[in-house]
Amino acid sequence: MGEHETPIATVDVALFTLGEGNLCVMLARRPDNAKVFPGVFALPGGYVHVTEDDDTGACARRVLRDKAGLSAPYLEQLYTFSGKFRDPRAWSLSVAYYAVVPATELTGKSLCLAPVDDLPALPFDHNQIVTAAVRRLRGKAAYSSLPTFLLPEKFTFDELHSVYQQVIGVELNKVSFRRKIENQGIVVPIAGEKQYGAHRPAQLYRVAEDALKEFDQTL
Amino acid sequence: MGEHETPIATVDVALFTLGEGNLCVMLARRPDNAKVFPGVFALPGGYVHVTEDDDTGACARRVLRDKAGLSAPYLEQLYTFSGKFRDPRAWSLSVAYYAVVPATELTGKSLCLAPVDDLPALPFDHNQIVTAAVRRLRGKAAYSSLPTFLLPEKFTFDELHSVYQQVIGVELNKVSFRRKIENQGIVVPIAGEKQYGAHRPAQLYRVAEDALKEFDQTL
Repeated sequence: MGEHETPIATVDVALFTLGEGNLCVMLARRPDNAKVFPGVFALPGGYVHVTEDDDTGACARRVLRDKAGLSAPYLEQLYTFSGKFRDPRAWSLSVAYYAVVPATELTGKSLCLAPVDDLPALPFDHNQIVTAAVRRLRGKAAYSSLPTFLLPEKFTFDELHSVYQQVIGVELNKVSFRRKIENQGIVVPIAGEKQYGAHRPAQLYRVAEDALKEFDQTL
Repeated sequence: MGEHETPIATVDVALFTLGEGNLCVMLARRPDNAKVFPGVFALPGGYVHVTEDDDTGACARRVLRDKAGLSAPYLEQLYTFSGKFRDPRAWSLSVAYYAVVPATELTGKSLCLAPVDDLPALPFDHNQIVTAAVRRLRGKAAYSSLPTFLLPEKFTFDELHSVYQQVIGVELNKVSFRRKIENQGIVVPIAGEKQYGAHRPAQLYRVAEDALKEFDQTL
């Protein structure tokens, strides 16, 4: 210790939400005085601050608070990217996280959202981070309550179905989807609450408390 | 940069093998002149050396080479453990890996192997790392070729069955296990090779090349 040069230690966050029917990831403009890639859009990230952050998860939450003004209800460590060449400044190590928020949380904020299936070229290895995060999210989405983190508090069954389709990126047969969701007890109908509109009134649902509790964000 | 204090950056490796019918993890004695926990058994680990290591994976392979004298055929990043308090020296961050090797690779080496279900108290958060690694290994084992990394090059079906049972930690019905393994094309019989012993000659198998290729160690 002491005699060794230490790597740069950062955290990067891929924040997912839905925008115009697509799974999107949030990009943040790097400061104009940044040493590398000034003014360029990238994943929000930053150095680990040993005096402020309890751990890298706390660092990721601070980054989201500072760069997007929000606290993510779902945040999971993805993978640690590292190496000699990923950052032009020095040997660097980035603990990457991904987060999932409903689009309603972002209303009124001027954030840049890019569809994950049509991503611009990003600095560092951020394209690789997004690709890995999308794979993880889609892999977990099909058999879990994870996509419900993209929904507002109350939603119709059609909205639920649509969110799963957008996240997974394939069409899902509505009948078998309903059976699967009901078997897993992921959502519960809200007694007496319906959504009224152009169509016949639709039952409103909320996420079952147990469905969220059993979802392990830590490992 | 520069104005921030940087975390300690290390790599720790949980190396799994089978010993006397149990899934075991290798422990290494910390040097007597170590600043913290001198002479104590712990997971093999070390600082990231920015001049030597291309990335944290290379660092993990170097640690295994230096502390166990072996190159692990299977090595996967597990999770990054971090925080103010996990290391008495300073705010630290450890990229944890797990590796899987056949017991035959360890013959003749004087290594300390501890059964994962009866682990001593380890320094830092190493018990937590082992628990997480065992969970990941067992989770992946049931539906993949991962446990075959614990086998020598040639093996009987009974040996294969036994290795899966030891890794997963439960008894597996031999008939349905055979069906599953055959459906997945994980092993292939070696034409004309049989093991002779006390029982009737047993067909020898090897791992199918495709079974290992499709197994993604990187993410």
